[in-house]
Amino acid sequence: MDEFSLIDTIFSRLTTSGSPALGLGDDAALFSPPDGYDLVVTKDMMVSGRHFFSSDPMDLVARKLLRVNLSDLAAMGAKPLGYLLGLAFPDKLDSGLATELSKGLLEDQKEFGIALYGGDTVSGAGKLVLSLTAIGYVEKGQALRRNGAKPGDLVFVSGTIGDAALGLKCLLGDCPSDVALVRRYHVPVPRLALGANLVGLASAALDISDGMIADLGHICAQSRVGMRIEARRVPLSDAARHMLADTPDLLRTVLTGGDDYELAFTAPPENADAIKAAAKSANVPIMDIGMVEKGDALIVVEEDGTSRAWGAGGFRHP
Amino acid sequence: MDEFSLIDTIFSRLTTSGSPALGLGDDAALFSPPDGYDLVVTKDMMVSGRHFFSSDPMDLVARKLLRVNLSDLAAMGAKPLGYLLGLAFPDKLDSGLATELSKGLLEDQKEFGIALYGGDTVSGAGKLVLSLTAIGYVEKGQALRRNGAKPGDLVFVSGTIGDAALGLKCLLGDCPSDVALVRRYHVPVPRLALGANLVGLASAALDISDGMIADLGHICAQSRVGMRIEARRVPLSDAARHMLADTPDLLRTVLTGGDDYELAFTAPPENADAIKAAAKSANVPIMDIGMVEKGDALIVVEEDGTSRAWGAGGFRHP
Repeated sequence: MDEFSLIDTIFSRLTTSGSPALGLGDDAALFSPPDGYDLVVTKDMMVSGRHFFSSDPMDLVARKLLRVNLSDLAAMGAKPLGYLLGLAFPDKLDSGLATELSKGLLEDQKEFGIALYGGDTVSGAGKLVLSLTAIGYVEKGQALRRNGAKPGDLVFVSGTIGDAALGLKCLLGDCPSDVALVRRYHVPVPRLALGANLVGLASAALDISDGMIADLGHICAQSRVGMRIEARRVPLSDAARHMLADTPDLLRTVLTGGDDYELAFTAPPENADAIKAAAKSANVPIMDIGMVEKGDALIVVEEDGTSRAWGAGGFRHP
Repeated sequence: MDEFSLIDTIFSRLTTSGSPALGLGDDAALFSPPDGYDLVVTKDMMVSGRHFFSSDPMDLVARKLLRVNLSDLAAMGAKPLGYLLGLAFPDKLDSGLATELSKGLLEDQKEFGIALYGGDTVSGAGKLVLSLTAIGYVEKGQALRRNGAKPGDLVFVSGTIGDAALGLKCLLGDCPSDVALVRRYHVPVPRLALGANLVGLASAALDISDGMIADLGHICAQSRVGMRIEARRVPLSDAARHMLADTPDLLRTVLTGGDDYELAFTAPPENADAIKAAAKSANVPIMDIGMVEKGDALIVVEEDGTSRAWGAGGFRHP
């Protein structure tokens, strides 16, 4: 099977006919963005052995690739339009692998109301390398940024924190396996509705991909502020709570582990009620876990009241 | 050096401050497309050992990556806005390699008036894998497509054909080396001005990346037509003409070799004068090399008058 047949037989069905983009028969994809909006574009890559296991179900790998990109759109308050896929096969074109990937993409396209706009397929990369560019739109000048947090703002996170990192530990055999935690690692949920609802309310936002502490550190660095976070207020799933009861040291994994794809955001206290309503309307639980402060210190107050400073990279200062 | 330092020190200078996009500090890039236009997006990947030699100068590799994407925009008649870069290092982050790549990108950004919008950097891919998404815009509903060729239309190509394929042969040691031909292989010229000028005049267009015959075959397939091409009218560079005088069999390489990134397009004969003016204003030579016909046969009339049918894939029918 050559590249053209692969596109015809497998990927062309991902360009829904109702979509604003052309099919895959032209040099590039064409779409009509809604007038009066800013466009938001993001690109994330995943490499076999680094970002996923070669033994992982490939439909889940494709869904995670799409979802981590959609999560970046959510973090900016944007609604998704479509995406381009880059697929580098380890050896030669592999229609079985492409079929598995496309199955996952099709499932998630339907869930998120988007379509494949175009892309490229190459071979001989040695490892499976996936690249995805997602495109969305947001009210002009209203995108959520990382640089707007002000001292006195509240710090919020959505959902529960640390599940994906604990799920990865399960997969690596470091913990007893837990289906719910592994699921959080394999299939993150981009918080698109919440992100869109936060436009005009949040002062800064991002998605938690590097780990909660490291990502809050990114807001601190871009906004030139510090934060004081209360560890006991960080929302945990039942599965995570259970695991921490057995192994309290895993709190560090929870606070610094990546791949949650929850939103972390700041907002002035007077917006707190509107923020709660926005979260409720998006059907996503949120929790205020701390406060933005002057300075550049990221402080975590532990359960016993001890305050510790963390570096922006998510590593604790010695 | 970690990913954040790499972005700060090397790639952030590719996001010009005058650009419509944010810097690289946010989850995604943000830009304001001009109202009333369609957007055109394209993504091409390149893999070390497959699309370039690991010994190639890396600034040239980056420029080719950018230019092949811009060529896709040119083929649609679009003007470029910006791009996203995906960079998968073979082993760990390599700031020397990133610097070389960024040098080439910066040079070409200035030439084409565009900026880096965002991207992703990963490591551990085994080979260097590059992915680029280019974004452009075109008058609403006016993009050049592959499916509009009609029987009776003239078939045109820009520039000269076959140079890049002959340049590759030089690099492989199959021909005496020729600097001009090798240059055509390393640094193709996207025909952006010509493409933009063809909007409203050409009935179908694409860029020649797979080889002239294969790409004309794509227009035939998408437009459900055939073509009759006169080999003696295919424009050749002096270097190519010289090489063919010694080795007439290289004509096959010229007709089927890829990587020229010239435009091939069709237009009704009544547009011929306007097309010539459009090419002159873009300062790009063009040549009419044949005619669109009813049916699905792609016929090449050789210099001695023999007509031969070629398959859409660029292989001659037995």
